[in-house]
Amino acid sequence: MNDNRPIGVFDSGVGGLTVAKEIKRLLPHENIIYFGDTKHLPYGDKSKETITKFTTKITKFLIKENCKAVVVACNTATSNSIEEIRKAAKDTLLIDVISPVAKKVAYELHQKIGVIATKATVNSHAYQKYIRKYNRHLKVIELATPLLVPIIEEGFRNTPVSRHAIESYLSYKKFEDIDTIILGCTHYPLIEKEVNSVFQGRVKVVDSPLIVVNQLIHEMEKNNLLGNTPDPEYHFYLSDYTENFAKLAKQFFGKSIILEQKRL
Amino acid sequence: MNDNRPIGVFDSGVGGLTVAKEIKRLLPHENIIYFGDTKHLPYGDKSKETITKFTTKITKFLIKENCKAVVVACNTATSNSIEEIRKAAKDTLLIDVISPVAKKVAYELHQKIGVIATKATVNSHAYQKYIRKYNRHLKVIELATPLLVPIIEEGFRNTPVSRHAIESYLSYKKFEDIDTIILGCTHYPLIEKEVNSVFQGRVKVVDSPLIVVNQLIHEMEKNNLLGNTPDPEYHFYLSDYTENFAKLAKQFFGKSIILEQKRL
Repeated sequence: MNDNRPIGVFDSGVGGLTVAKEIKRLLPHENIIYFGDTKHLPYGDKSKETITKFTTKITKFLIKENCKAVVVACNTATSNSIEEIRKAAKDTLLIDVISPVAKKVAYELHQKIGVIATKATVNSHAYQKYIRKYNRHLKVIELATPLLVPIIEEGFRNTPVSRHAIESYLSYKKFEDIDTIILGCTHYPLIEKEVNSVFQGRVKVVDSPLIVVNQLIHEMEKNNLLGNTPDPEYHFYLSDYTENFAKLAKQFFGKSIILEQKRL
Repeated sequence: MNDNRPIGVFDSGVGGLTVAKEIKRLLPHENIIYFGDTKHLPYGDKSKETITKFTTKITKFLIKENCKAVVVACNTATSNSIEEIRKAAKDTLLIDVISPVAKKVAYELHQKIGVIATKATVNSHAYQKYIRKYNRHLKVIELATPLLVPIIEEGFRNTPVSRHAIESYLSYKKFEDIDTIILGCTHYPLIEKEVNSVFQGRVKVVDSPLIVVNQLIHEMEKNNLLGNTPDPEYHFYLSDYTENFAKLAKQFFGKSIILEQKRL
């Protein structure tokens, strides 16, 4: 028995594409519906109420589109609104981007973990709380890096602009002796190479999309939700069309994707 | 007869401070109430409806605070919502940041004018429309430079980050032969020196805050609204407290200012 309903994925913008791309790689026979709330990005500076309003609306939309699972591919949404999103998702399988990563990291050998994320995620201290739930001896240092999402959304990756901003953030005094860093925003894997080049191999960068998608696969297997579509469809809804999104989505998913503007 | 009621000024964040500072310089005996809607910045990526909702609320608040004049120190608000703001302001003197600049520029000797602004301002083509109203022979090239507001709000002025972003934007092909540039966002005078250093004196940068405040003075004189407070009060309301705002406000207005968080 196979379940060929789509997997729903959402984020404020292109960030969640790093998770969606990993889903495509590890689950190549699944249809995917992606919602990018580009009209309201960045989420990272918004209030909990506002984030909850948009993300529960998107979740309801994805369920109406018949999704068999929903991946909250946004750290800000997870850290601020996961309970409300869970309610909106009702019985549908829901995967978030923080708890699988926190659990995995907590059981590995680390001394001191750095987390870079949006203001809203850092203010919620979600990583600290989740990681300490599993291992209360770990040191977790969280740093808000609010310019990185605009830099990525506006297409300034791999330029002197991104390089200097990343260098400036990562020179944070309390990061001096970290051995591991979590990119606590789904946008940030897009600048993983640049982060790595600042640390020059000294610090391990956690592969969050891989961990999240492994968790998704595990839960889908358990619930008999795996599909076997030979030629899956990748459908992208955007609350506001942006060139940068279209470009990146095509780069990750090929040119035959469906891109559609959708009022939220 | 003097009128010592305050002048109201508002913007999404620190940008309007460039106008408020000019008011303080040219009208040193006026009380000022400033509203910075830092919770909802940046306005530049938002829809017209959203911008209108926030800016009319702020205008009503300033009028309730007994302001004798309101300066819309935000290009995005002016270009998207000025009619609705005018209604909200009722009979109170209202000054916007685009029409005085467009009028002044239209009557001077220029061949080709560049405008850098937020996406929302560029999409409205407000500068093109206003300038051509006075002089339909002028060439006006508008360019959205959306990373500049986050760069300024996050404290990255005068760093390699701002320098590279500005260089990248200003290398826009259609800007090659402009003789004048309008900084079409009240944040941008904060990077005026950096813009100048890219053009190396080849292009005239329009001093928008000066033009706007001259218009304000002219209208205040006409309407007998000038004040003579010997020791004026500078009161700043913020919808969300940010370090960067506090720092810049103190730098411009001294340490005795009043800073207050205010729910919008």
